[in-house]
Amino acid sequence: MRVYDLIYKKRQGEVLTKAELDFLISGYNKGEIPDYQMSAFAMAVFFKGMTSEETANLTQSIINSGETIDLSEIEGVKVDKHSTGGVGDTVSLIIAPIIAHFGAPFAKMSGRGLGHTGGTLDKLESIEGFNIHLTSQEFIDKVNKNKVAVMGQTAKLAPADGKLYSLRDVTATVDSIPLIASSIMSKKLAAGADGIVLDVKTGDGAFMKSVEDSFSLAKEMVDIGTHLGKETVALVTDMDQPLGEAIGNSLEVIEAFETLRGRGPEDLTKLCITVAGHMLVIAKIFTENQQAENAVRKVLESGEALAKMKEFISAQGGDPDVVDNYSLLPVAKHKVAVKSPVDGNVKKIKAETLGKMAMMLGAGRAVKTDSIDHSVGIIVHKKQGDKVKHGEPLATVYSSTSQVSSDVVDGVINSYELTKEKVEEKPLIYGVVTREGIKK
Amino acid sequence: MRVYDLIYKKRQGEVLTKAELDFLISGYNKGEIPDYQMSAFAMAVFFKGMTSEETANLTQSIINSGETIDLSEIEGVKVDKHSTGGVGDTVSLIIAPIIAHFGAPFAKMSGRGLGHTGGTLDKLESIEGFNIHLTSQEFIDKVNKNKVAVMGQTAKLAPADGKLYSLRDVTATVDSIPLIASSIMSKKLAAGADGIVLDVKTGDGAFMKSVEDSFSLAKEMVDIGTHLGKETVALVTDMDQPLGEAIGNSLEVIEAFETLRGRGPEDLTKLCITVAGHMLVIAKIFTENQQAENAVRKVLESGEALAKMKEFISAQGGDPDVVDNYSLLPVAKHKVAVKSPVDGNVKKIKAETLGKMAMMLGAGRAVKTDSIDHSVGIIVHKKQGDKVKHGEPLATVYSSTSQVSSDVVDGVINSYELTKEKVEEKPLIYGVVTREGIKK
Repeated sequence: MRVYDLIYKKRQGEVLTKAELDFLISGYNKGEIPDYQMSAFAMAVFFKGMTSEETANLTQSIINSGETIDLSEIEGVKVDKHSTGGVGDTVSLIIAPIIAHFGAPFAKMSGRGLGHTGGTLDKLESIEGFNIHLTSQEFIDKVNKNKVAVMGQTAKLAPADGKLYSLRDVTATVDSIPLIASSIMSKKLAAGADGIVLDVKTGDGAFMKSVEDSFSLAKEMVDIGTHLGKETVALVTDMDQPLGEAIGNSLEVIEAFETLRGRGPEDLTKLCITVAGHMLVIAKIFTENQQAENAVRKVLESGEALAKMKEFISAQGGDPDVVDNYSLLPVAKHKVAVKSPVDGNVKKIKAETLGKMAMMLGAGRAVKTDSIDHSVGIIVHKKQGDKVKHGEPLATVYSSTSQVSSDVVDGVINSYELTKEKVEEKPLIYGVVTREGIKK
Repeated sequence: MRVYDLIYKKRQGEVLTKAELDFLISGYNKGEIPDYQMSAFAMAVFFKGMTSEETANLTQSIINSGETIDLSEIEGVKVDKHSTGGVGDTVSLIIAPIIAHFGAPFAKMSGRGLGHTGGTLDKLESIEGFNIHLTSQEFIDKVNKNKVAVMGQTAKLAPADGKLYSLRDVTATVDSIPLIASSIMSKKLAAGADGIVLDVKTGDGAFMKSVEDSFSLAKEMVDIGTHLGKETVALVTDMDQPLGEAIGNSLEVIEAFETLRGRGPEDLTKLCITVAGHMLVIAKIFTENQQAENAVRKVLESGEALAKMKEFISAQGGDPDVVDNYSLLPVAKHKVAVKSPVDGNVKKIKAETLGKMAMMLGAGRAVKTDSIDHSVGIIVHKKQGDKVKHGEPLATVYSSTSQVSSDVVDGVINSYELTKEKVEEKPLIYGVVTREGIKK
């Protein structure tokens, strides 16, 4: 087999076999195939695409490039959840105790990541004493005992993906649906889940800017899961504004507790119900989606899952009292209200810009070695469709310093797109993709 | 300027500016831009193409990557000739004395190349004493004195082209018309010609297999020349069989002398008349093409250019007597006739296969360090449209050993496509492309 022929084949729009993709990915991972051939291949994939089966085979090849995690010792159907990345996305923190409350295992291995705020690991570390450094055995034991645990990812999952992603990032070959889908799914599937619920964000603050592209990506990922024998459901959800109101680590933890008390923002609550509903059906706790969602809604209204949240925190060394006493969490002292310079209605919030402001405050990492300030962030007061008057606060900035830079204040203001006209509310959830098809 | 943005721009089908192409090529040439970005760019060009102006700008950037040759000391309009590469192509050897005979300068700098037989340099070196190692001043002086000289290329012309070509060769991005056209034209234009006549070969033995693609390439190259202010004419000519009858260095030299005596093969003679005609018009020796061709034909019939050939050989240290006494040339002793295994008509001769057989005999180089045997080669007896009987010789192999390997004999036989049906003759010259357009 010659790499040249595989590049040529893809360039001509032909379908690569499983053996050919294995040869390509394993050779690239081992450094036997140079970057310059791989980038030409990636560009050919950009133009010619891949069939569903081919994309699934590519995903399997990427999985095969590294270790895979064996969760078979954990009882029950392990359902993982993945979001393609949004601003203020606190869903995982909220659904963790809910899923566990219903008796399904929530076994999340998480990486730290770059971006506006930290990942789930960082958010949990806002809680003093919370320990994410577990051995595999501790992790498995905790999930079997409490049905929920979160640990930092230690194994080298899908290393070819990291290498390929870095290359695509500098060769204008990132935005290819088969390459994005295989990248996400390879890491998820290597982590050992039986089923996956994907939240594909769409809009300004998301990687996929158009609803159409988001559905294509969702479908591609569901197809991969189906081909590789893992039940996969994908939601396409709005990111033309941040989800919920909090952006920042401890602020999002508080928002999670509030949501578990039935007092969370409407959009965040609704999305948690939908995601948890699908997870509980895949986990075979419920047979029907409507039934599952109703049950989750009831748990949120009653605050029943708070007990499980305390158990979860306690089991990982954290102080469970934070759930009732938010002052135990690090919240920045200095609050600055950002006021609207005009009258208007909120048409859109550039979530990416807002997220960047949170990062500038210290809530997220620009590069891997940055440290995170768990206490800072932004609370959004006005959301899409809201009327706002001149001088009324759009958002509050939580800062570690008494002076907030004018760049951040301006950034927050600029992230708001205001209009004189009345704004129609946009849907939160655009649709659901399952192996049966797309339901909008 | 960021390379990423340029790759992205081309991927989206946009036109790169002159400054952007300069940045890309000069950065790549200096090693500041890595292969993996350049190969992704090349693949994007494969899919999205380039405008004529863009291709001309790319060519200029490639020219700028190295030295250029200044031929301004040579009197007259310097017209260069380039063939995209065929088998048995002896045209340059024949037209050199013809052009000079009419008083136009024929100043050829030539590289050694790989392939079926050697290049023009190697063919000339079949003549004992012939010296192609001239200084620039010797070269210029010789051309001014005799109107003809050939020297080995010493300057580093268009080095970015060599680097880019090697990359394209392993990333399935060779067959892109703007990339091929800019590659050829950059080297020709860097060599300092005022005008160029291109012979774009088409068919089995050529780089471009289809007539349509050959016209596209021809047009692209003429457009480059026009954009860069050099009069350029391109012929599209047949390579579905070797040109003339001889393949091999000394064999082709003899064929050249015979053609200059008016006894050359019909196709080779016709092509020489056409190429020389265009060159003499560009060189302003004649104003009309028909007039020029008639004059060239007359010179061939009368053998008038033989005197110039002798002068040319003598001026470069060779023995001019070879022109009259072919036994002074090294011709292999062992001749083996390859006989037809069946009755039939010659439909086609796979020139590439036949060329490879000549290379196997030692007439050409597989890799740069190979040495060449000037004495070996193949003489073709049957050409397209010819009737052939079982046992009749198709070709004669000239070998340095008494035993010719059965691989070579079989290769010669297999290169002949014979058919029971009568074969219609195909055109030798499919058309001419000038700045005015395509004339088929």
